[in-house]
Amino acid sequence: MRIAEIGAIEGNGSCRLSLTDEDKEARDLFRFWVTAAGCEVRVDNFGNIYAIRPGARDDLPAVLIGSHLDTQPHGGRFDGVLGVMAGLEIVRALNDAGIETEAPIAIVNWTNEEGVRFKPGLTGSCGFVGALPAGDESSISSSDGSRYYAELARIGYAGQDRPPQISTYFEMHIEQGPVLENAGATIGIVEGVQGVRWFEIDFLGQDAHAGTTPMNNRRDSFLAASRYALGFVERAMDIDPDVRVTFGRVEVEPNSTNTIPGRTRLVLDLRHIDEHVLDRVERLMADQGEPLKKLGFGFSINRIMNVRPASFNRDLKDAVEKVASSLSMPSLRLPSGAMHDASNLAAVVPSAMIFIPSRNGISHNPLEWSEPMHVGDGCEVLCRAVLEAAKA
Amino acid sequence: MRIAEIGAIEGNGSCRLSLTDEDKEARDLFRFWVTAAGCEVRVDNFGNIYAIRPGARDDLPAVLIGSHLDTQPHGGRFDGVLGVMAGLEIVRALNDAGIETEAPIAIVNWTNEEGVRFKPGLTGSCGFVGALPAGDESSISSSDGSRYYAELARIGYAGQDRPPQISTYFEMHIEQGPVLENAGATIGIVEGVQGVRWFEIDFLGQDAHAGTTPMNNRRDSFLAASRYALGFVERAMDIDPDVRVTFGRVEVEPNSTNTIPGRTRLVLDLRHIDEHVLDRVERLMADQGEPLKKLGFGFSINRIMNVRPASFNRDLKDAVEKVASSLSMPSLRLPSGAMHDASNLAAVVPSAMIFIPSRNGISHNPLEWSEPMHVGDGCEVLCRAVLEAAKA
Repeated sequence: MRIAEIGAIEGNGSCRLSLTDEDKEARDLFRFWVTAAGCEVRVDNFGNIYAIRPGARDDLPAVLIGSHLDTQPHGGRFDGVLGVMAGLEIVRALNDAGIETEAPIAIVNWTNEEGVRFKPGLTGSCGFVGALPAGDESSISSSDGSRYYAELARIGYAGQDRPPQISTYFEMHIEQGPVLENAGATIGIVEGVQGVRWFEIDFLGQDAHAGTTPMNNRRDSFLAASRYALGFVERAMDIDPDVRVTFGRVEVEPNSTNTIPGRTRLVLDLRHIDEHVLDRVERLMADQGEPLKKLGFGFSINRIMNVRPASFNRDLKDAVEKVASSLSMPSLRLPSGAMHDASNLAAVVPSAMIFIPSRNGISHNPLEWSEPMHVGDGCEVLCRAVLEAAKA
Repeated sequence: MRIAEIGAIEGNGSCRLSLTDEDKEARDLFRFWVTAAGCEVRVDNFGNIYAIRPGARDDLPAVLIGSHLDTQPHGGRFDGVLGVMAGLEIVRALNDAGIETEAPIAIVNWTNEEGVRFKPGLTGSCGFVGALPAGDESSISSSDGSRYYAELARIGYAGQDRPPQISTYFEMHIEQGPVLENAGATIGIVEGVQGVRWFEIDFLGQDAHAGTTPMNNRRDSFLAASRYALGFVERAMDIDPDVRVTFGRVEVEPNSTNTIPGRTRLVLDLRHIDEHVLDRVERLMADQGEPLKKLGFGFSINRIMNVRPASFNRDLKDAVEKVASSLSMPSLRLPSGAMHDASNLAAVVPSAMIFIPSRNGISHNPLEWSEPMHVGDGCEVLCRAVLEAAKA
């Protein structure tokens, strides 16, 4: 709640775009708190901040807990912040209880998870896992003319430190969907992150005058696209009801009230946790266009993005589930529909994510809310799983 | 073809937006030609140009022939120009044949028929029939920051002349649709002009994350709008297959690939020649939204335009049909799906329109084409009908 005051916007939300003055203020406050909690602070080339609580054996790799402090332009109080603050809470609780772990525990704030001001998003965790070259301004584009590394220097976070070595990564996050709430579960054990494929689907008919062209003489690309979309969704659900199909962008041309639209583009966001299912749905996508071609429509599909599914570590998931069960907290396994820094980390170290419920499933919105009790439950489960990994 | 060189664009089309330098050049050439053909030229307050060929009795009202020289931004060589040039051809032919008519014959170029640069379109003919006040800059809006009357003055067509008194109005135009071509007819006798109603139809669902929201937890406004559009078109065709239904503009919000669109607006263009049929389809439009409301969608309809159907003069239509028949030219009665200056004129004097075929029904496009032979046939029918009205 204190962090949310930095970059506060109407409706109780927050706007802290990466590497702005607001982001700097949140980072400074985080650094102040973790320093007060006895942590050593490091900042790496990408501006990621690590707060390290020493263990009994500092030759062991650390157990890393984290997420991000940046937000969407019209963001809420939980997305990202929760996972960083959970790390701080755990360190403070261990301090209060006088518990020493064998391995060090570290908290991380990854830079530019949201990808609003700079692309690609998940910048800091991409850098950490070696998926982005350090210091290369040309590999990161900006939406407002600013430059990533120049902005890092401006706000005082152009670091040179080595990240800590780590054995394990934990990220706690709000679900950003309604599944836990609907099921009455408090703890979500995230199976993995859905693969995402984006497609531009183009329907080419014939522009013509809305008044002079009889209905049976038309090739109306919008009606063709509508029929396609409805049929496709229905048949995709037959393949697997867990497939997620969204036509988020729709463009008709010439987009003039009295002209039959000759061209319609649908941009499709397709997600599932299983790559084979994605392949099957992608074949369906092409098949569904065949009848249109016979009717004289042009039809083409262009895949513009393909992010492969990620799986979290089986042992860590089992461990989290056991902890929740031992605390009598109702838990549920579910996929993550959204990308997270943990998707990157899972490629290099055993990783796990814990979800807590989001009220009405709303996120990326000032209305975003999670109950304090659920936040507390999530922290407790996370803390016990961390202690196990760090061998208290 | 000479006029089409003014404002020529790629693909053999023309761009002569109203009151631009290109429009001025076409007007100047028209004035030069009609003056050379012995006509008196008048320019009225709206910039309409009248070219008057005197009759034996100048106390009689003139027979007016015309259309417009302005075009769409991506226009062709026939829409509008044909009807003005037909007037010139008739005057020249009568001169060549030494025929004097009892009543004067006049040619008109109406200002801003297309309505691209200034709204409302059909400006000049609206002014002529008293549907727009003269000299009132506030009654005409511009899409590019220019002002109608200032632009008229700039190109030298801010006239003060009185229009001629007229008895009859004839407009020859390309069909802009495929009906004549499909029927193998050369001459279209236009019954009247379809009424046009425009509606904004809004579907309100819920924005949500494309990845985190299960399919059965969504209120996807685009899928709802698609289902609505397809069902509505089908049922409207059941009411009357001559109804014309076009969703020419489609907007989804937030129009972001990974967000389920919470709001979709369809803008509907609805046309038919019978007002009662339009009323029935409008009721259907509301009824079709009821199931959506039950599913939790917001649904609303806003009528933003209503142009009533117009009918052309029965005697003139019969006369044109008789002329075509006497020349053994296959003719057909059909409605006009598009608005024309003649729709305005029909409200104040007996008026008629003659259509000639458009290749593939294409219009408002550089591909617009009518065969020279059909142009000649149209001119011949028009000339004989004009002579009858002007009592040669």
